[in-house]
Amino acid sequence: MESENKGSKIMGGNGMDGVENRGGQVGKQQGRGRSGSCVLLVVRVLGLVFTLVAAILLGVDKQTKVVPIQLLPTLPRLDVPVTARWHHSSAFVYFEVANIMACSYASLSLVLIVTSGGASHILKSMIIILDAVMVALLFSGIGAAAAVGLIGYQGNSHLQWGKVCNVFGKFCNQGVAAAAFSLLGSLAFLLIVVFSALRAQGKS
Amino acid sequence: MESENKGSKIMGGNGMDGVENRGGQVGKQQGRGRSGSCVLLVVRVLGLVFTLVAAILLGVDKQTKVVPIQLLPTLPRLDVPVTARWHHSSAFVYFEVANIMACSYASLSLVLIVTSGGASHILKSMIIILDAVMVALLFSGIGAAAAVGLIGYQGNSHLQWGKVCNVFGKFCNQGVAAAAFSLLGSLAFLLIVVFSALRAQGKS
Repeated sequence: MESENKGSKIMGGNGMDGVENRGGQVGKQQGRGRSGSCVLLVVRVLGLVFTLVAAILLGVDKQTKVVPIQLLPTLPRLDVPVTARWHHSSAFVYFEVANIMACSYASLSLVLIVTSGGASHILKSMIIILDAVMVALLFSGIGAAAAVGLIGYQGNSHLQWGKVCNVFGKFCNQGVAAAAFSLLGSLAFLLIVVFSALRAQGKS
Repeated sequence: MESENKGSKIMGGNGMDGVENRGGQVGKQQGRGRSGSCVLLVVRVLGLVFTLVAAILLGVDKQTKVVPIQLLPTLPRLDVPVTARWHHSSAFVYFEVANIMACSYASLSLVLIVTSGGASHILKSMIIILDAVMVALLFSGIGAAAAVGLIGYQGNSHLQWGKVCNVFGKFCNQGVAAAAFSLLGSLAFLLIVVFSALRAQGKS
């Protein structure tokens, strides 16, 4: 994505306009630039896949259990079917939206990178900024979902919030899997951002 | 942080070794590099201050209220003093640790940047990586604290978790202020990471 070089638009080069071409050295740098951009494309695809799997896992997560509920102390307990869904918690809604946004953005950015050949400076800058925004979005989503999930598993006696995962075990376990995939997706975006920043370092 | 230029070690230059110095053009680029590095140092100081304030605000956050508690249905209610503290929730503990780590790291990185003059490539790379890690850490902490805080304010009828901020209003409001400062700190780190990545873009 760093290159203006016509011959290696998609894979990227070094874009050293006005610099004397020193044969082998420049060739090596171009080679590193190409392989680096290839790795970044693969990492972006992994980011797409992981966040997509996370969104699907939580999106289809649903468990119905028959729970005994006592409406009044004088009445006997009633067995009522209760369904656990992701949209019953704002944290899970936020997590779901964050992952959908991240995988949509990853798809769009991949299409733009491949079709435009990484030629536009504005596009490249926009992608760098949005990559970093995705890191923030995904990690905040994981934090939110993990915080609520942990209370679901353990409860909180100080706040008098009871655990629910002893009843809705399958729902909780699938939620943990979604969080794990989302974490992998977040790390992919983090890697892209770090690699982009380290490129500046390598060029100084 | 990009410069190898002896005359402007702290403020940074362009580090264009082997490139013919073209007078005014290079001078302009060096000027931009210096002012950019100055802005980054200021943003890093802001990141330090905001995360420090967030950590202090939550660290000293405490509220005691006399709450009527009924131990048994046959006994009368007892008025018991109950204290809300940040370490009663794992999410708040994580948030606190994240902010302490971020402000400690910001202090250390500032000292290293100023004393070393940004000369070491390994140090610069480490700082870039750790800046990105702080973004992930802080945003996940904010997500966790906000998720628990929101349930504290609104409760969750599906999970049968009652709201607590109607009783511990001051504690909750101070927590919101801590989250707001932490968000500002996170945005400061995000800005540093984006700016570092955009520098690569500017040099291509």
